[in-house]
Amino acid sequence: MYFHVQEFINEIAEDEPDPAAANALQEGLGGQFGEMRTMMQYLFQSINFRGPDVKPYKDLIQGIGTEEISHVELIGTTISRLLDGSPQYQGKKSDPVDKPGAAGAVPLNIALDTGNIHHYLVGAQGALPVDAVGNPWSGSYVYNSGNLVLDLLYNLMLESTGRLQKCRLYEMTDNKMARSTISYLIVRDQAHENAYARALETLGVEWRTTLPIPKTNAERFPEVKALIDLGLQSKQYSFDLTAQSEAGKIFQGASPSGDGTTLDASEQAPAGAPMTISPERREEFSPGADKELQALIAATAAMEMADIDATFGRLS
Amino acid sequence: MYFHVQEFINEIAEDEPDPAAANALQEGLGGQFGEMRTMMQYLFQSINFRGPDVKPYKDLIQGIGTEEISHVELIGTTISRLLDGSPQYQGKKSDPVDKPGAAGAVPLNIALDTGNIHHYLVGAQGALPVDAVGNPWSGSYVYNSGNLVLDLLYNLMLESTGRLQKCRLYEMTDNKMARSTISYLIVRDQAHENAYARALETLGVEWRTTLPIPKTNAERFPEVKALIDLGLQSKQYSFDLTAQSEAGKIFQGASPSGDGTTLDASEQAPAGAPMTISPERREEFSPGADKELQALIAATAAMEMADIDATFGRLS
Amino acid sequence: MYFHVQEFINEIAEDEPDPAAANALQEGLGGQFGEMRTMMQYLFQSINFRGPDVKPYKDLIQGIGTEEISHVELIGTTISRLLDGSPQYQGKKSDPVDKPGAAGAVPLNIALDTGNIHHYLVGAQGALPVDAVGNPWSGSYVYNSGNLVLDLLYNLMLESTGRLQKCRLYEMTDNKMARSTISYLIVRDQAHENAYARALETLGVEWRTTLPIPKTNAERFPEVKALIDLGLQSKQYSFDLTAQSEAGKIFQGASPSGDGTTLDASEQAPAGAPMTISPERREEFSPGADKELQALIAATAAMEMADIDATFGRLS
Amino acid sequence: MYFHVQEFINEIAEDEPDPAAANALQEGLGGQFGEMRTMMQYLFQSINFRGPDVKPYKDLIQGIGTEEISHVELIGTTISRLLDGSPQYQGKKSDPVDKPGAAGAVPLNIALDTGNIHHYLVGAQGALPVDAVGNPWSGSYVYNSGNLVLDLLYNLMLESTGRLQKCRLYEMTDNKMARSTISYLIVRDQAHENAYARALETLGVEWRTTLPIPKTNAERFPEVKALIDLGLQSKQYSFDLTAQSEAGKIFQGASPSGDGTTLDASEQAPAGAPMTISPERREEFSPGADKELQALIAATAAMEMADIDATFGRLS
Amino acid sequence: MYFHVQEFINEIAEDEPDPAAANALQEGLGGQFGEMRTMMQYLFQSINFRGPDVKPYKDLIQGIGTEEISHVELIGTTISRLLDGSPQYQGKKSDPVDKPGAAGAVPLNIALDTGNIHHYLVGAQGALPVDAVGNPWSGSYVYNSGNLVLDLLYNLMLESTGRLQKCRLYEMTDNKMARSTISYLIVRDQAHENAYARALETLGVEWRTTLPIPKTNAERFPEVKALIDLGLQSKQYSFDLTAQSEAGKIFQGASPSGDGTTLDASEQAPAGAPMTISPERREEFSPGADKELQALIAATAAMEMADIDATFGRLS
Amino acid sequence: MYFHVQEFINEIAEDEPDPAAANALQEGLGGQFGEMRTMMQYLFQSINFRGPDVKPYKDLIQGIGTEEISHVELIGTTISRLLDGSPQYQGKKSDPVDKPGAAGAVPLNIALDTGNIHHYLVGAQGALPVDAVGNPWSGSYVYNSGNLVLDLLYNLMLESTGRLQKCRLYEMTDNKMARSTISYLIVRDQAHENAYARALETLGVEWRTTLPIPKTNAERFPEVKALIDLGLQSKQYSFDLTAQSEAGKIFQGASPSGDGTTLDASEQAPAGAPMTISPERREEFSPGADKELQALIAATAAMEMADIDATFGRLS
Repeated sequence: MYFHVQEFINEIAEDEPDPAAANALQEGLGGQFGEMRTMMQYLFQSINFRGPDVKPYKDLIQGIGTEEISHVELIGTTISRLLDGSPQYQGKKSDPVDKPGAAGAVPLNIALDTGNIHHYLVGAQGALPVDAVGNPWSGSYVYNSGNLVLDLLYNLMLESTGRLQKCRLYEMTDNKMARSTISYLIVRDQAHENAYARALETLGVEWRTTLPIPKTNAERFPEVKALIDLGLQSKQYSFDLTAQSEAGKIFQGASPSGDGTTLDASEQAPAGAPMTISPERREEFSPGADKELQALIAATAAMEMADIDATFGRLS
Repeated sequence: MYFHVQEFINEIAEDEPDPAAANALQEGLGGQFGEMRTMMQYLFQSINFRGPDVKPYKDLIQGIGTEEISHVELIGTTISRLLDGSPQYQGKKSDPVDKPGAAGAVPLNIALDTGNIHHYLVGAQGALPVDAVGNPWSGSYVYNSGNLVLDLLYNLMLESTGRLQKCRLYEMTDNKMARSTISYLIVRDQAHENAYARALETLGVEWRTTLPIPKTNAERFPEVKALIDLGLQSKQYSFDLTAQSEAGKIFQGASPSGDGTTLDASEQAPAGAPMTISPERREEFSPGADKELQALIAATAAMEMADIDATFGRLS
Repeated sequence: MYFHVQEFINEIAEDEPDPAAANALQEGLGGQFGEMRTMMQYLFQSINFRGPDVKPYKDLIQGIGTEEISHVELIGTTISRLLDGSPQYQGKKSDPVDKPGAAGAVPLNIALDTGNIHHYLVGAQGALPVDAVGNPWSGSYVYNSGNLVLDLLYNLMLESTGRLQKCRLYEMTDNKMARSTISYLIVRDQAHENAYARALETLGVEWRTTLPIPKTNAERFPEVKALIDLGLQSKQYSFDLTAQSEAGKIFQGASPSGDGTTLDASEQAPAGAPMTISPERREEFSPGADKELQALIAATAAMEMADIDATFGRLS
Repeated sequence: MYFHVQEFINEIAEDEPDPAAANALQEGLGGQFGEMRTMMQYLFQSINFRGPDVKPYKDLIQGIGTEEISHVELIGTTISRLLDGSPQYQGKKSDPVDKPGAAGAVPLNIALDTGNIHHYLVGAQGALPVDAVGNPWSGSYVYNSGNLVLDLLYNLMLESTGRLQKCRLYEMTDNKMARSTISYLIVRDQAHENAYARALETLGVEWRTTLPIPKTNAERFPEVKALIDLGLQSKQYSFDLTAQSEAGKIFQGASPSGDGTTLDASEQAPAGAPMTISPERREEFSPGADKELQALIAATAAMEMADIDATFGRLS
Repeated sequence: MYFHVQEFINEIAEDEPDPAAANALQEGLGGQFGEMRTMMQYLFQSINFRGPDVKPYKDLIQGIGTEEISHVELIGTTISRLLDGSPQYQGKKSDPVDKPGAAGAVPLNIALDTGNIHHYLVGAQGALPVDAVGNPWSGSYVYNSGNLVLDLLYNLMLESTGRLQKCRLYEMTDNKMARSTISYLIVRDQAHENAYARALETLGVEWRTTLPIPKTNAERFPEVKALIDLGLQSKQYSFDLTAQSEAGKIFQGASPSGDGTTLDASEQAPAGAPMTISPERREEFSPGADKELQALIAATAAMEMADIDATFGRLS
Repeated sequence: MYFHVQEFINEIAEDEPDPAAANALQEGLGGQFGEMRTMMQYLFQSINFRGPDVKPYKDLIQGIGTEEISHVELIGTTISRLLDGSPQYQGKKSDPVDKPGAAGAVPLNIALDTGNIHHYLVGAQGALPVDAVGNPWSGSYVYNSGNLVLDLLYNLMLESTGRLQKCRLYEMTDNKMARSTISYLIVRDQAHENAYARALETLGVEWRTTLPIPKTNAERFPEVKALIDLGLQSKQYSFDLTAQSEAGKIFQGASPSGDGTTLDASEQAPAGAPMTISPERREEFSPGADKELQALIAATAAMEMADIDATFGRLS
């Protein structure tokens, strides 16, 4: 069973809208090696896991899988913010955007010359479950052979490829909003790569100097270096509300990446970052409330909620 | 940010393996109107949500979306259990299964005459991210127009269709394991249908006698009736760890289904059911640990975990 | 602009339900060489047609394309009838079907052992836009190079392949309902093959003894022979309401198939067969009207329609 | 059975070629909420319709479905015209285009920098059965649950989403050719939305102020306003050649959109607009007739057609 | 540049037709981890290879990739033979099969109850480029990151998964024809796994007891044991006509699987097995030559070929 | 069984990087009518071929199919070279590319404004198995009906369409590297078109003036004319190592294209062009060897290979 808090797993830096960067980031969300894929792959591996004797491996996969849901939330929001307001931002007068199409205005014509026209036409300047060339995410991406060593080996390769692509993404844009999320995911992919590499060590592999794969030297990227200095590549959170995870039996000892750090699974979750709601975009008819609807909404908002807080007893 | 507890959202009844039922249930997991779809649709709608003034609607969608992740876990596990051990169960002697292929044995030949051979060939008697005819789940299923009324209308239709299909699934099998999950999801789909119907009421629609859509009279199904008697069709949990959800401003008052109940959003989550790990299946080489691996695993299991429990301070 | 009459293009014979035959027929509806494909291909070729000097070729393609819409209607209805009532027919007592799922009955369990479970689970014992292995129809099937000779050559190959597959379908089932439609489409595919072959003759090709391709000798099939005796393989209707089609400039002279007949484009359309509406299927909740709905429907039905008939002036 | 007249359902305004607008319009043709989808969805719903007592609902769906075929023809032709001649138009000298590739000329290099290179490479400056990011149309889009209320609810949502996307399309381009078709489809989508909303009213729903969904206030678009002033949003044609449609039993009374109009189903079809054939494009080898072919074609054109007009007795 | 000899890379044992086994084998041909995938992945990795200093790695991948084309030929032919004649074999009288459909016979009705009806309906009892549930092979399967270590790691995982699936296939059928090819591919996958594991050893990884992954102990399968006894799991052929391959610089030394063998890259290719052509199948109209065609073919066959053998100077 | 030589089937001219041309060429590689398709179609037709009496037709298809593998290699390499170094070439300073991302540099930002971002993000400036709009190659493209005449007719249409698209590609770019491969493939497609047309002649068709289809008059393209002057459109190589091909029984006599040449099947293969390995691209981390890896690689390279050349006895 899953729970949610209204916080992001990491802070998203502020910068100007950038639809091209938004589209590139789609690969990290809905691409073959993006966050939707890691999330789904680890959830299915957890669901179908076999071997009561090897619970620590399941807990490791389950914990990383839970984190990936938050990564979907993080990168999806980043894409949404990179798109948000881009028609107005690109030099359009505010009036036509406020009065969409009035007298024949073309407030959305930016969409014709963008990475994915669906960002404006199908969605309302928001993230889509597709990759950077518009292919929808597919269930055929999920790998779950049921053989423990193979699944771990695949997961290692998956995290390594995800990190490689994110390093390339970093090189494609200098938008700070995009880079803050890219850099965070590079470091967390590294942590997950360490987790699967360490698990394979417990099953016999010796990596010697091979890790990390690939050797992108991402510490050359300033935002990445700042996170590595905090040791985020060597931590794994449990995201487990009742502390039953045994992932720490695996995720401990010297990092297989040979960077001199020690793996640490002692924390439940990182401190979250505040979550806000995006503004109205009238040219997208989103959320599209006219005066009548606004009156109805106001009436709803004014209602007294049942005193539900008192009942939140178990966890809060 | 998301968290997990090692419990199922509902108990799965015990019964014998049943691969045909397992395959039918795949529609409820990876089908166009299954749980992966509702989960992803609501997550994207939450991520891309617009309108700071309409937060209760976002919170409603977010809360249901979080529940859907637990539904994926529930139905995925149900499929896995329906498949688990089916080769042996179907009259095969235990020896060939314990010694896969030895001397030319064919312990997996059940797979040639089953709904989806991938259950045995690609997975290891486990759930797959596909529908009941083997089509992989697709990101193109996700609907998120950004217009609030349209998104709510779509969500209502989605839950109604999901419930219709589950009623048909109920009519296809009398396996108790399958039916316990089907029945639970019928009732929860009804709750979500009520949630979106109620939200549309706050925005102006009057349903009169139209709901529920469709009128399947699922209370004719005994397992469904038991859950309706508990009022589960009129509750919506928040799954929100820090009680910030305002969904209760919408999910309250008389049920739009006209069944005489009152909508109740006062609970955080249902009591969970215990989670266990599936046994080894040697004919699938899953998890596939030989003696050497078992020795290595035992060494890992014997390690003392760092005393991480004390650090679980914020939520537990 | 298109019009409809409430008649089928050919009569569908009566026989018992046969879900296996229904599923095989899906190839002829939604398969790569089925009727949805010919329909869409010819519609796109008509829309994108170039060359004011070659209007007869456009008219030929447009006329065949219009006929294909009626073929979609015919084969779709045939599939629907082959499925209709199959759960009850296969030895189930009528009660559980009339009271779906009551007391735990399993009226739809036939669906678990059928060609495509979606026929019962996603649809309500009706046709689907998929092929015989469940692949959805795809726009990537449509061929429209814009080069006239190539498009005609492709169309010839397409009709020939469609006819080959339908001859194989004939060999797969002896259900009379299925065979009446299969046989009609074999003969009409032959007519279309003649049309494209004749068009290529006007552009220089001499077929000599090559046609028909392939030589399936379908006159061995009694139902086919009956239609060939009527000359249906050598007629092409215009389906053109205002007689502007010039297709007859091409579709005339000796048949390129060398069967001694003369091609004839003089008729607008065949006589139609009566159209009826399928009965309710309660186990599918289709159409699903309960008493309240039935009362509302009855009220609608009792309304006097505006006297619209008088206004149907132009064409009737 | 279907028929055709060589007229468009609406006139297409004249303007200059505009490949970017053409590509955006592909969403309205081959997109998930475009005309191919509505057409196929309503055709399948008509074919699989259940309930002899509810024939007016079938007739309503059948009539709209027939109209959608004409919409496919209209928007497909609009795309074709927007593409037609664009290489020459964009400042290329006429000679290289007339003599494609002669001496190494690059008359099609515009294709490298356009929305969908397939418009020039796979097609010959014509419409494709794909959406605006190049995804082929898929049969998986079609929804037909068999439950009447659900199908109507889905259809309402489908028309509303189609209209929303077309309003966004209007905001993306000011090309008059594109806008004439976009505007016509906005108003017709509104009519269909009214049809399904009205049908749901007869089944119990009261929309009060909710309609239209969404409230795009498209009358701000001048071309749309002109059509609304004519009342086109409140008419539904039967497209039924023999006046058997009972759709008027539903489509009558005050418009559910609350615009003060009365729904009117008394007309068979609108007056059509003349249809012409696109010119040759030599750089596409389309239609590609050289001198020898032209001589053969001329010989065909000179043939006397059989006197087929006299035989067009039933309808003309 | 590629060449062909009219020989199979391994002999296919004789046994009776078995369409269920044929369909299972499709996973090994067109599945996500089948031979079409390995073939295409290694061809693309060879084409896009970077690093003049690391030519031995390219040569290793190229050599295995060339072998995979022969594997496609081998498993495709095995499937074709498993299907060939199955309608007649399953107890059908020979007459209806020889005279397809005559007097209404149903010689192909086996197709309605088989793994993939396309084997009889779209193909003519032959192999298809799809997996065992009918999904077409997809270019999205191909992995080629460009990073050498990652590509090798992926290839290792790919071969290991292919071998795992083939071990499961072995357990599904005891048809000797199927098993001869399955067993050969198990052993060759093992050889390729050794090749990529050895390549990773040269780049720093120490596998210790981990290999093979997974530990299926396939030597329990008698046909596999026979090939292992010949050492086929430790050989890699170059398939390089002019002996320029440097793969032997990598594929040498003790096998990383720890079976006591030494890797050997000294042979160009194995001895081939004779290739024959499948017989006519009249019920499939394949090849479909009637008397007239046969006469034409005989005339062609009687022609004297130009004396081309003398010109085969370079290689033979 | 297949073999390889380390040579290209034709020389690739030198020119500057051109990512737009590279992307257009993807249609010729992974498009529906590209080289991957012809290769796979002919391989499957060879594998499934029926009719011992018609071996020359099989040999013809097999020989062309083998050539197509070399075409995949040729066009794939051409795309790779067109992409190679493009970030640096487009005016980027060399330093940031040599030190990817150092201090926040954006060496790959060209990728955001290119035909397919995957060329830089998923691949490492290399070819992909997709078409020019990014659709992955699909097994559903392969046509193999089993009927000889139909398969030959389809193959003729396939080669003709491939040639048509390549003529359009020629008109899209004047990059010499792109055009050298485009022109070669135009002429080879013509040869294959002649082969299938000639085969159909032996089965009864008389083409008269129809061929080539379409009449693109590609000799207007200077690079094409040079190859036609060499007669390459009228040669077919066997690519058969042991001279067992009987394709020459068909591919002889006057060319069906009516260009006055005589078909010639006497050569085994063309002279090949030298093959080189692409340089490192540090901004792609490809191949990604750091100092430690380079030392390990150097150690491997220094090893003495076993004296394998002497063993290459059969063919060299």
